[in-house]
Amino acid sequence: MDKNIIETGKKIKNMEIRGAAKIGRETARAIKLFCENFSGSKKDFIKNLKENARFLVNTRPTAVSLSNSLRYIMRDMDTEMDLEDLRENLIKRSEKFIELSLSAIKKIGEIGANRIRDGDRIMTHCNSSCALSVIKTAFRKGKDFEVFARETRPRYQGLLTAEELCKEGIKTNLIVDSAARYFMADMDLVIIGADAVAANGAVVNKIGTSELALIAKEARVDVIVAAETYKFHPETIAGKLIEIEERDWREVISEEKKREIGDIKVRNPAFDVTPPEFIDLIVTEKGIISPQAAIMILKTEYGWDLDKKDFWEV
Amino acid sequence: MDKNIIETGKKIKNMEIRGAAKIGRETARAIKLFCENFSGSKKDFIKNLKENARFLVNTRPTAVSLSNSLRYIMRDMDTEMDLEDLRENLIKRSEKFIELSLSAIKKIGEIGANRIRDGDRIMTHCNSSCALSVIKTAFRKGKDFEVFARETRPRYQGLLTAEELCKEGIKTNLIVDSAARYFMADMDLVIIGADAVAANGAVVNKIGTSELALIAKEARVDVIVAAETYKFHPETIAGKLIEIEERDWREVISEEKKREIGDIKVRNPAFDVTPPEFIDLIVTEKGIISPQAAIMILKTEYGWDLDKKDFWEV
Amino acid sequence: MDKNIIETGKKIKNMEIRGAAKIGRETARAIKLFCENFSGSKKDFIKNLKENARFLVNTRPTAVSLSNSLRYIMRDMDTEMDLEDLRENLIKRSEKFIELSLSAIKKIGEIGANRIRDGDRIMTHCNSSCALSVIKTAFRKGKDFEVFARETRPRYQGLLTAEELCKEGIKTNLIVDSAARYFMADMDLVIIGADAVAANGAVVNKIGTSELALIAKEARVDVIVAAETYKFHPETIAGKLIEIEERDWREVISEEKKREIGDIKVRNPAFDVTPPEFIDLIVTEKGIISPQAAIMILKTEYGWDLDKKDFWEV
Amino acid sequence: MDKNIIETGKKIKNMEIRGAAKIGRETARAIKLFCENFSGSKKDFIKNLKENARFLVNTRPTAVSLSNSLRYIMRDMDTEMDLEDLRENLIKRSEKFIELSLSAIKKIGEIGANRIRDGDRIMTHCNSSCALSVIKTAFRKGKDFEVFARETRPRYQGLLTAEELCKEGIKTNLIVDSAARYFMADMDLVIIGADAVAANGAVVNKIGTSELALIAKEARVDVIVAAETYKFHPETIAGKLIEIEERDWREVISEEKKREIGDIKVRNPAFDVTPPEFIDLIVTEKGIISPQAAIMILKTEYGWDLDKKDFWEV
Amino acid sequence: MDKNIIETGKKIKNMEIRGAAKIGRETARAIKLFCENFSGSKKDFIKNLKENARFLVNTRPTAVSLSNSLRYIMRDMDTEMDLEDLRENLIKRSEKFIELSLSAIKKIGEIGANRIRDGDRIMTHCNSSCALSVIKTAFRKGKDFEVFARETRPRYQGLLTAEELCKEGIKTNLIVDSAARYFMADMDLVIIGADAVAANGAVVNKIGTSELALIAKEARVDVIVAAETYKFHPETIAGKLIEIEERDWREVISEEKKREIGDIKVRNPAFDVTPPEFIDLIVTEKGIISPQAAIMILKTEYGWDLDKKDFWEV
Amino acid sequence: MDKNIIETGKKIKNMEIRGAAKIGRETARAIKLFCENFSGSKKDFIKNLKENARFLVNTRPTAVSLSNSLRYIMRDMDTEMDLEDLRENLIKRSEKFIELSLSAIKKIGEIGANRIRDGDRIMTHCNSSCALSVIKTAFRKGKDFEVFARETRPRYQGLLTAEELCKEGIKTNLIVDSAARYFMADMDLVIIGADAVAANGAVVNKIGTSELALIAKEARVDVIVAAETYKFHPETIAGKLIEIEERDWREVISEEKKREIGDIKVRNPAFDVTPPEFIDLIVTEKGIISPQAAIMILKTEYGWDLDKKDFWEV
Repeated sequence: MDKNIIETGKKIKNMEIRGAAKIGRETARAIKLFCENFSGSKKDFIKNLKENARFLVNTRPTAVSLSNSLRYIMRDMDTEMDLEDLRENLIKRSEKFIELSLSAIKKIGEIGANRIRDGDRIMTHCNSSCALSVIKTAFRKGKDFEVFARETRPRYQGLLTAEELCKEGIKTNLIVDSAARYFMADMDLVIIGADAVAANGAVVNKIGTSELALIAKEARVDVIVAAETYKFHPETIAGKLIEIEERDWREVISEEKKREIGDIKVRNPAFDVTPPEFIDLIVTEKGIISPQAAIMILKTEYGWDLDKKDFWEV
Repeated sequence: MDKNIIETGKKIKNMEIRGAAKIGRETARAIKLFCENFSGSKKDFIKNLKENARFLVNTRPTAVSLSNSLRYIMRDMDTEMDLEDLRENLIKRSEKFIELSLSAIKKIGEIGANRIRDGDRIMTHCNSSCALSVIKTAFRKGKDFEVFARETRPRYQGLLTAEELCKEGIKTNLIVDSAARYFMADMDLVIIGADAVAANGAVVNKIGTSELALIAKEARVDVIVAAETYKFHPETIAGKLIEIEERDWREVISEEKKREIGDIKVRNPAFDVTPPEFIDLIVTEKGIISPQAAIMILKTEYGWDLDKKDFWEV
Repeated sequence: MDKNIIETGKKIKNMEIRGAAKIGRETARAIKLFCENFSGSKKDFIKNLKENARFLVNTRPTAVSLSNSLRYIMRDMDTEMDLEDLRENLIKRSEKFIELSLSAIKKIGEIGANRIRDGDRIMTHCNSSCALSVIKTAFRKGKDFEVFARETRPRYQGLLTAEELCKEGIKTNLIVDSAARYFMADMDLVIIGADAVAANGAVVNKIGTSELALIAKEARVDVIVAAETYKFHPETIAGKLIEIEERDWREVISEEKKREIGDIKVRNPAFDVTPPEFIDLIVTEKGIISPQAAIMILKTEYGWDLDKKDFWEV
Repeated sequence: MDKNIIETGKKIKNMEIRGAAKIGRETARAIKLFCENFSGSKKDFIKNLKENARFLVNTRPTAVSLSNSLRYIMRDMDTEMDLEDLRENLIKRSEKFIELSLSAIKKIGEIGANRIRDGDRIMTHCNSSCALSVIKTAFRKGKDFEVFARETRPRYQGLLTAEELCKEGIKTNLIVDSAARYFMADMDLVIIGADAVAANGAVVNKIGTSELALIAKEARVDVIVAAETYKFHPETIAGKLIEIEERDWREVISEEKKREIGDIKVRNPAFDVTPPEFIDLIVTEKGIISPQAAIMILKTEYGWDLDKKDFWEV
Repeated sequence: MDKNIIETGKKIKNMEIRGAAKIGRETARAIKLFCENFSGSKKDFIKNLKENARFLVNTRPTAVSLSNSLRYIMRDMDTEMDLEDLRENLIKRSEKFIELSLSAIKKIGEIGANRIRDGDRIMTHCNSSCALSVIKTAFRKGKDFEVFARETRPRYQGLLTAEELCKEGIKTNLIVDSAARYFMADMDLVIIGADAVAANGAVVNKIGTSELALIAKEARVDVIVAAETYKFHPETIAGKLIEIEERDWREVISEEKKREIGDIKVRNPAFDVTPPEFIDLIVTEKGIISPQAAIMILKTEYGWDLDKKDFWEV
Repeated sequence: MDKNIIETGKKIKNMEIRGAAKIGRETARAIKLFCENFSGSKKDFIKNLKENARFLVNTRPTAVSLSNSLRYIMRDMDTEMDLEDLRENLIKRSEKFIELSLSAIKKIGEIGANRIRDGDRIMTHCNSSCALSVIKTAFRKGKDFEVFARETRPRYQGLLTAEELCKEGIKTNLIVDSAARYFMADMDLVIIGADAVAANGAVVNKIGTSELALIAKEARVDVIVAAETYKFHPETIAGKLIEIEERDWREVISEEKKREIGDIKVRNPAFDVTPPEFIDLIVTEKGIISPQAAIMILKTEYGWDLDKKDFWEV
């Protein structure tokens, strides 16, 4: 096992490295280093590459950006090549993924910013770097608008969003999650990020997103999801259900308070699923699509062959 | 001015006396004492009664239970009566209001409990004594069900609800407000209270209620509002809009945090309005009605004459 | 116990007497005879009347027309009257109920017929005498329309409806229940009956009604419910849930077929509940109301006092 | 036949007297004069009264305000009274109707104005004096808002509305009817009048109203109907369908143009029917109701007895 | 004409060979045999191939699997090849279609089974081998769930479904079609097959499917369609409407019964069309897509050239 | 600058050349002539070509058919070719665009006509040659149907439509725009054109289209959009919002009338945006797609590379 890979894997596991984009890039970086440092036969190279890829995937099996990073790098790998070409090719693909990841958020910001108009009031949820890229890019282009950030219980990521926006100088309002429908009649846009996009266009995102989208739909307010294409989940094509993590109840209530209350069960799902009919469009770095066209992104990126195993699984 | 009235008024103002039902009853009690203690001419009695009523109404002009309590007591007052009859009549009406208020929550509990079935999963919001009366009465009748309490940001009244339910021995789950749609697919009922019911059946209740009702409607889950008839707002017949109080932003975020974030506006409306089409039925102590029939309760209680001033305003 | 009462009760129990309207009328007739034939003291009369009423109610506790018939007769009974007045009064009320029942279907037919226009295509479900009264009255008035009868599995009451309509000379189509949405785009009206109407306007009727109403709503086709006021269920004001009878599975499948198929459970609920928002109006003999105004019929007929026990229960 | 009655009837027929409210008042005035001037026996008085009422009703059988005016006047007429009491009573009722009609629009203006808030954008359709009373009263109370008037093809009554509003000094926009949805996302209220309100809460108003209401509903904009209670149509309780007049096609297109185009059929219905679920509330002079409670107004005004013939029809 | 082709054609016509998948495979098999047995010139081969293909297509012009089977086999046929290569190529394609057809149902079963969770209650309609493959595969993987089969009037294919499920040991309930909405509140999934999928994602399936899908949508229950890609209808791209066959009325009612009833018209459409917005996803052997992405499957399989005639039509 | 290009540009600017299709074709024709007439070096040719293209684009920057015409011609241009090949290639592409444009409307007519059935009632809006091609083709194929044309205020293009249809001999009705919902219950199809189609399937068309589509959706009437693929807007992939032109208020009202009315603002947007969920399918010359698959057309025509500048912008 490669030393760098082990190091990176450990950091992903203990969440020193976190955030979908960062995980994807650090994975690519580790593979690049592995390729650069490897010495041995071609046969050994391939065997080692597979082992190290499997190791990385297993550190956080539900993070779609991690496996999509590996898929991107190894997609068109031709094992018939000689070792040096193979190595060079993988290094190039790794670098390209990092580059792509770095440019995607910027690109999404530019595309999405075009949808914001002067005078808009925009509601957002949680703390998505893609959604923020859209909002900030619009602001830097001189657009004049106002943002309503939901606080996003239980972890208050809405405060981070509010802080980032305030620092930028954007007019910002903070509301409790429950006040969304109260203000929705005055909104012009809802802009949110995504943790994963499924084959039928359903969007997995921070708990509370699906109810925000429903409230927006009822009020005829457009819902824009901002997501890089490596958030699209290829295994959902084969029917895989994206698991919804349920997090520690201590995020919701303190131990003392819980003891006081009595024999209560505190439920704390971290994400929910928004059906495609509540979403008006998804902004990716490849352009705007309707959520129902998600399969097109997936097939373009990962091909039609469902039976083709990932390289590291063969 | 009557000493007791002043005392009661002060307590209502500084919120020593609070909760719609309690405010109504204490108002009635103060009027009763005033009648019992008054000595003087009939003319003085009437003059004083008006002054004292006006004083009480002004301590908390938006509390509909306060003015409805006075309306109940003075509804059919015949100033042609002689003083003793008048006094006796008012005392009787005051006592009857107190009695009615005490029995209404109990009655609503009994009626509403009939709607709960074994195996039901029920979501609730905030901390409504009427809604809790329905849930507890059902439990005491031996029904076997489970409750999901939303924490109800910003003031976490959902924790009070959770505590009350746990003490009763009812199976209880606590969730953040945003998780409502995540769990809604598994719910069978939503039961909530009301701060006020308008002439067209719209229900004013704690912020977050209208979005819960929308989420329930989308999932074909019945929404039951539990509310005493003195929550029905007679002035809405004349077009009065029920004002939505916006509370101190410190309920949402600490001063330190706000300073850290920067130039942000924190919005904190205390209530929202749920349109009648999201509500399946209202349980009152007079029975179950559809929200669109709210005007019937109002006209039965307060009559058809819009121009008739309240006694204390003449 | 009165001989006639026992006889009538037996016939209701074994379904010799059936159909909501008939049950109501025969109940009234039996009470009338009891009053006419009774000899004894006033005290005995009252005691006997209660016993006989209770006996009748218990023969079919879920038939709302039976208890509503008794409620109608005994509504304003003044036990302070002397025996002869009491007796006479009850006889008159019994006769009036019978008369009212006989005229109600006719009246509903006349009112409802006004809603049918030349060229209409009307869908109906099951075999409701009120709905048929509307359709036939319109035809006899010379209106030219066409009816689509759903066969109404499992008992094919739609065939009875089709037969009645054909005999009348009305252009009639028969379809399987599943074809309702296929034809709905061409319909102008849906006309159905009711087994019971709840306090919030929900309508209990033959299984399949709620899905027909939903399909009609989606296609912007008016849904008319035709129901006598004694189908309105006073106990639902107090939260009583109308129980849905589940009938013998042999109605759905033969024993042989079931045996052939294997270890299967056949579910056969007889009724379903249509929410008021799927119904455009209810035609009663007192006129047209929106379903949400159902409580108004109930309060007008049965008063506001929820605690008032039925005479026979005191 | 009374000379004044004949005169008034003629003017109603040839539309010298027009507008629902005016027709109602002039009807009352004519009856009053008839009563004052009549000399003869009581029997003759009654016979004449009936004849004259019948005559008036027949001048414009579809104008609900005409017959409702007569119904109001003759509602509680007691033919057992002696002539002078009868006469005096009818004169008093006539005067009261006129008074009521004169005050109703004002009252509706005051009630409805409470629903308008500073900053509102309001869309209206056609040229309703009740809707205008609401808007103008709000303006005179110092509220700051903006109105969008649809031009209301084919007769451009929207121009009259726009003119009235402009003269008042209210900020006014004119749009073609088709642009309603384009602007609806920015509206806060839709305020319209009614030609008639049916027993189930459906509202008959100028063609284009139902589509405006649908567009508002889709965008979660409240729809307020402003209508005097004598617009409520008692005969709809008995199932009467309100007929929709189809007007001359020359209102839509010139004869020349039509000839140029060729063999074309021009359709020109004058009114349409808005279902109650698209309306948030109706403002009457008796207060605000939900449309589904329309039957309550009708029963309060015209009673429960469907078979009771109008006095002039007996 | 080839003997085998004639034989196969006859069997398809008289429905000895039936079921979309089987028809497709037998068509392929017949073409394969034709290719193997043919002796003659290349020119004759091509002429004969066309004739035989045309003959087969005409035996059942509405069966999309038949023409799609031929399209698959002849898709990339290069008539410039010499006879032996041509023959070999066609034989290989025929075998590949058979193989593909055999594996598709299995693959769909595996993909779809991933969407079923322990504790699910699933409703199905008619008797689809794809839908059953999904359900059975999930069961064989050890999932614990329950199925509700609608009987599917008029031909009761639901009984066949129930029988298959029972034999497998799956907990199964049978209901009449009309009871679907009654049970829908307790369902977690609806799984159905398809007879054809149109270019805009509309699904043609057994009568009653569209209303089941509507009922599911209303209750927020996911609707899964299971269909092989050769059910996607390439001619719908060019606007062809899929014809809905109306079957013999004797399927609905016996001749005797009809005679008894009188002059009645019995309507009996065999299929209906479910719009894409009622369907959550389609499971194909190529993976999961949203119905709106149906065109992508069609263009990938059949290309973009609308004017390209099928080989046998040139 | 080329003389022909200047001439064509001038005509486009002053609207001598107008209509999306014509603009596209004349653009192609001018480029063709430029290529044929050019004499000079290859370097000059390329420089001139760019200048002339830029000039044309600037004459009407919002006309998507103009830039799409240039994109089509220059799509695969290889500047490495020698001058003669380059020139020949561009001439061929220009001719092909003209041909394609000429055949697209015809092709759309044929495809769309398949969706019309005997007995259909079809509503249309404005005056779209694609929509008319569908309707007329169906008529010429012998289909028997009826059309309702909305007059399309403010410019009455509906009269042009009506005229064209009448001349063809098609049964035609004309209505004011506001009467759409009144007649919608009787419609079977809505067929409209498009000015532009966005990446998420939203359709920009004449003002009033989105409300017609909403009204149709409410009534379960299919909405068909007929549009050539060069109406699909590639820049919307990158988030560009299609600007909605607001036209001269004199289209709505005369100067005299406006002066009479007073200080009024007349709003007159020319187009609106119909969201994809109100549209059932789009007919293009490449076949039928669901609106959500619009991105597929765009990516097939214009590729995936968002950063690739148009040839004339480099």
